[in-house]
Amino acid sequence: MSSPRKVSDSTVRRLSFYLRILKEIRGRGVRTVSSARLAESTGVTSAQVRKDLSAFGNFGVRGRGYDVNELGDHIRRILGLNRTWKTVVVGAGRLGGALTSSGDFSRQGFRILALFDTDPAKIGQTVGPATVRPLEELDGFVREEGVQIGIITTPGEHAQDAADLLIAAGVRGILNFAPDRLRVPEPVRLRDVNLAVELEGLTFAITEIGEPGG
Amino acid sequence: MSSPRKVSDSTVRRLSFYLRILKEIRGRGVRTVSSARLAESTGVTSAQVRKDLSAFGNFGVRGRGYDVNELGDHIRRILGLNRTWKTVVVGAGRLGGALTSSGDFSRQGFRILALFDTDPAKIGQTVGPATVRPLEELDGFVREEGVQIGIITTPGEHAQDAADLLIAAGVRGILNFAPDRLRVPEPVRLRDVNLAVELEGLTFAITEIGEPGG
Repeated sequence: MSSPRKVSDSTVRRLSFYLRILKEIRGRGVRTVSSARLAESTGVTSAQVRKDLSAFGNFGVRGRGYDVNELGDHIRRILGLNRTWKTVVVGAGRLGGALTSSGDFSRQGFRILALFDTDPAKIGQTVGPATVRPLEELDGFVREEGVQIGIITTPGEHAQDAADLLIAAGVRGILNFAPDRLRVPEPVRLRDVNLAVELEGLTFAITEIGEPGG
Repeated sequence: MSSPRKVSDSTVRRLSFYLRILKEIRGRGVRTVSSARLAESTGVTSAQVRKDLSAFGNFGVRGRGYDVNELGDHIRRILGLNRTWKTVVVGAGRLGGALTSSGDFSRQGFRILALFDTDPAKIGQTVGPATVRPLEELDGFVREEGVQIGIITTPGEHAQDAADLLIAAGVRGILNFAPDRLRVPEPVRLRDVNLAVELEGLTFAITEIGEPGG
């Protein structure tokens, strides 16, 4: 089966959510699941679920629903989760430390091999499964280990430099927590997690519905 | 000027980005900015910038562009950033600690007044400007202080309980970092930051463009 070329970001997000529901269902020993059940848990219509899944092949059995294991394996393959991704974190501050020591990423196949920082006081510290190394070692480390993903948690003014270093060394994707917009060349993939933007979306929504005395 | 009823999530995100560019431009002492300049920095067209901004009033002066201060103030008002938001964090783990002690939130008017946790070992600890309190005190604290925003960084299985407590005590918006989908009643506003979903979006994009030996 060839990979479809254009899949929207929201479809990919829904696949992630279906996968979470499937894990939970499998944990309860249930073997099949309907599109209605997947729809209910993710807040979309059953038709949307069937459309999302049919874009990647034909899994459902009419009147029986989807096989929980099979569908889960398939979504994991689509999302690239059927393998391990070698990952490094640039910026060994509190956020970088929190991400590295949380088990959530490693459980999903994102193996954080090292953190990098410029602060001599942090070099050599152990954070969860990884050690903080000097930024000068990033290039060699990424090349030697074949690191594919870089997570940037530096202050904003150093984020583009961090991205440039990661890309020059060969990473294929960057998850950026710094508030700045980064420039990355094709075919490197970039995703931004901007916490201030999320909070601003929240206060906009609160303000919009009317703020008593605001 | 009445507040427009329906503004898309992506418009709100772009406003956040315009605001960042405006701050940077103001920092360099520049007084006016063109829609083309705002467009360039955010990766959209000038027409999109003008459309986004005209939805909230008429700021531009033809041929002169926008007044940097005025436009910044206006976007801050639209986003609800011209005031302080009393905020608490539920879950005093590493992520909760990183968010609380980062100065980024407070600089934008999100004042984190307390963290709440069930772990006796954490109660009483100081994290940045706030203290960790027992979860039983959440209800009284939120009511007395008039807390408007709750940030949830608990493990997934406790996130809905945390949301229920926050909502019962009167918060108006929740920023949820737990991977679970939360149910919140109208008119409470919810935004999810799901780091695993972001990473999965990244690996999907990398996988889609072809993985050598993958």
